[in-house]
Amino acid sequence: MDLDLEAELSRHTAKSVVIVPVILSGGSGTRLWPVSRESFPKQFWPLASGKSLIADTVLRTLGGEFAPPMVVCNEAHRFMVAEQLREAGVTGARIVLEPVGRNSAPAIAAAALIVAQDDPQAVICMMAADAAIPDSTALRHALIAAAEVAHSNKVVTLGMKPTKPETGFGYIEMGAPLAEMAEAHTLLRFIEKPDPDLAETLIASGKVLWNSGIFVFTVSTLLEELQAHAPHVLATVRRAVDARTGDLDFIRLGREEFAACPNISLDYAVAEHTTRAAVLPVDFAWSDVGSWSALWDLGEKDNAGNVAVGDVVIEDASNCYVRSDGMLATVLGLEDAILVVTEDAVLAAHQDRAQDVKKIVERLKAQKRPEATTHNLSYRPWGHYEVLILGDRFQVKRIVVKPGEKLSLQSHFHRAEHWVVVEGTAIVTRDTDEVFVRENESIYLPLGCRHRLYNPGRISLTLIEVQSGAYLGEDDIVRYEDTYGRS
Amino acid sequence: MDLDLEAELSRHTAKSVVIVPVILSGGSGTRLWPVSRESFPKQFWPLASGKSLIADTVLRTLGGEFAPPMVVCNEAHRFMVAEQLREAGVTGARIVLEPVGRNSAPAIAAAALIVAQDDPQAVICMMAADAAIPDSTALRHALIAAAEVAHSNKVVTLGMKPTKPETGFGYIEMGAPLAEMAEAHTLLRFIEKPDPDLAETLIASGKVLWNSGIFVFTVSTLLEELQAHAPHVLATVRRAVDARTGDLDFIRLGREEFAACPNISLDYAVAEHTTRAAVLPVDFAWSDVGSWSALWDLGEKDNAGNVAVGDVVIEDASNCYVRSDGMLATVLGLEDAILVVTEDAVLAAHQDRAQDVKKIVERLKAQKRPEATTHNLSYRPWGHYEVLILGDRFQVKRIVVKPGEKLSLQSHFHRAEHWVVVEGTAIVTRDTDEVFVRENESIYLPLGCRHRLYNPGRISLTLIEVQSGAYLGEDDIVRYEDTYGRS
Repeated sequence: MDLDLEAELSRHTAKSVVIVPVILSGGSGTRLWPVSRESFPKQFWPLASGKSLIADTVLRTLGGEFAPPMVVCNEAHRFMVAEQLREAGVTGARIVLEPVGRNSAPAIAAAALIVAQDDPQAVICMMAADAAIPDSTALRHALIAAAEVAHSNKVVTLGMKPTKPETGFGYIEMGAPLAEMAEAHTLLRFIEKPDPDLAETLIASGKVLWNSGIFVFTVSTLLEELQAHAPHVLATVRRAVDARTGDLDFIRLGREEFAACPNISLDYAVAEHTTRAAVLPVDFAWSDVGSWSALWDLGEKDNAGNVAVGDVVIEDASNCYVRSDGMLATVLGLEDAILVVTEDAVLAAHQDRAQDVKKIVERLKAQKRPEATTHNLSYRPWGHYEVLILGDRFQVKRIVVKPGEKLSLQSHFHRAEHWVVVEGTAIVTRDTDEVFVRENESIYLPLGCRHRLYNPGRISLTLIEVQSGAYLGEDDIVRYEDTYGRS
Repeated sequence: MDLDLEAELSRHTAKSVVIVPVILSGGSGTRLWPVSRESFPKQFWPLASGKSLIADTVLRTLGGEFAPPMVVCNEAHRFMVAEQLREAGVTGARIVLEPVGRNSAPAIAAAALIVAQDDPQAVICMMAADAAIPDSTALRHALIAAAEVAHSNKVVTLGMKPTKPETGFGYIEMGAPLAEMAEAHTLLRFIEKPDPDLAETLIASGKVLWNSGIFVFTVSTLLEELQAHAPHVLATVRRAVDARTGDLDFIRLGREEFAACPNISLDYAVAEHTTRAAVLPVDFAWSDVGSWSALWDLGEKDNAGNVAVGDVVIEDASNCYVRSDGMLATVLGLEDAILVVTEDAVLAAHQDRAQDVKKIVERLKAQKRPEATTHNLSYRPWGHYEVLILGDRFQVKRIVVKPGEKLSLQSHFHRAEHWVVVEGTAIVTRDTDEVFVRENESIYLPLGCRHRLYNPGRISLTLIEVQSGAYLGEDDIVRYEDTYGRS
């Protein structure tokens, strides 16, 4: 017998733990504007590697001791989550949809109640979808160790060994080693993001760890603790879970029930109150990817300390983070600067002010500017589209439809549409006709006509849509039939 | 009789001077990249006011003592010059086309030889197309005074009273007042752009002026001086003028003859050698618009010293120049920075490095990047077009055709085109047909078909062109007939 295989088998036999990763995809990541926006927040962007943060997160705990993941996300992001898991090759994931965002306590409570129906003794490990942890193996080992502690009814947090007096993270003060497992410690208290002086003092004490927000507990421990410290949260979430509906591959929580739930983090609801808190100190690289400066920290630097991502030219600059998701970005003679270029907005900032990017976003929101919250690129279950130009009475979009996918049967009151197929093949329903439109052919959809677009092919269909009319809003649409439950 | 009118008439009667403004539209303005590029250099952009620099320049000396202007420009820019003069309401201008750029001495020599055919005693005032002089009245008075000095066979330069030890300009050392006119002085020498120490010394001397590059002389004086100091330049330019052809409203110099001419500035060819040099000190705001910092100097500043042009949001920054010609540009926490955003490139730089923007352009040229030299927006005699997106096998353009204008009759070997009219009306020739295409209608032009686009209407025609094919270069075109002499 192969020795490696034997070792692997014996390892599996020795561990009885099965861990359900619960990935919380919340937050809007405004400090990473203009890339991260409410409509497409940071966890869906390839910020720390070639894959999106959520794909990286899910892949870290795939297989072996880990059950397929459960992702809890905003309903509006469901197709992005599904698509990114599919692209990452993840199968068997369950996606729980929050009708509204209510922070981490209700989200993890919902996940726990759903997992409990299969196995109340299952161990859950709760992780944010938007952290960066390059060493997956170290994380897996830590989670497995934490799961063993969790089995003795502990609420276990991973505490990151601090490397500098960071003011952007919360801290954890640890106490004595646990009797059950000497590697873990009792958790004395949580400390909010400190000022620089306090951060220095904390680091000097040698007794603190960074709060990673990664929790490990059994379902039954979590539910008991919620019952003890946040019974109202548990009761409302239970009603939302009871009212859930299945919707394609999604689990949709009851809208009104979930909306009635308080907005509260697991730290406030449980972790700061429980007498069962434990912390497992770990020592591997971790980032909350909380700002452009955090990405500069994570990035590969040139000799002058610059991080360049995308189409970037740097001349005589140092310690800059320069990123372009589209056009050419050039930097000359700057120090400690951030330059981020997207398809419709540019941010130039000083590294020291990376935390204040949200101030820019707040100003843009106050001006009701779309760039504050939405991108030109919109994901849909059938593919995506990008607005190329919006004129006074016309709009041009590039529409990409995945193989085999179909848009809804629809009509518009105020606009006509011209579709030019530039790649792939389309079958277009136009009132009572079905028209086969090949590469390089076009079709006209007059105002009011019922139409539907279908990609019958094996490759993506790309078409250029030219809309013309007096009103071009996305809400001028009447849907008659929809594969994705939107009619 | 109206008193104002009487004063005006008496003023005209008193002055016998008629001055021909000769506007040299040379240079590529690479220090103002990414806005200024060879294909569309800085003089054509509205940088210092709402009008382009060349329009501002021409308008400053329109009417009164001034004859209609003569513009000497690169052949490739002829339609931009004509269009910008038309937009500015300038009539009667003559546009002299250089087949290649040969610097200011050949350009002004050509202008002088052409003007000489009407009036060898005419006074020419030579000005760059790309300077900013907010006070036109002061400039006109100075030019009229300079013209009087020029009539006594002087080569007169306007010398700008310096306001600071600027290292980006050349200087002029002035001597004694002239006998003919005490306001003007002899010109002792030209001083190249100084280092900071020399600049301080020069300013402290009180004897120096900035070299504005504005010259005033009679045609006969200039030709005599060219004959004396640069006879080869004069002889070659004379051959190029003799070989000129009329082309629409343009005077096109002989290509081979002009190409044979040395590349030399008027300063080197004549001004530094002539014994007839005089300088008229003037004291009004002037800028060579030589860098983004010069535009920061010129611009209107907020309380923190920031200049914002276009769609800009600034938070807690100071002494920044921020300009967007398109998407939203935001700046947070930077000092003394430049941020310039165009449709396809972004520059972020330190103000102190504004002169080094050309280094970025050189790097981009070495990489053969189109952003180094050309813009997405291209001007044509019939209007303009903008590339919205360039895909692998397709391209989308927005094409705007001016009322009454017509594109060439053409065909393509490698691409088909779809035209969707979104504003105005088109008459499209398609092989043997003439098709009337109204707003919201479209037409398909298969590969190889002979087609022509005409705007018969009274308003601009806007259409979206979707090209598809294996090769989409602008050079895949066969022209059969062209109103603008391009077939």
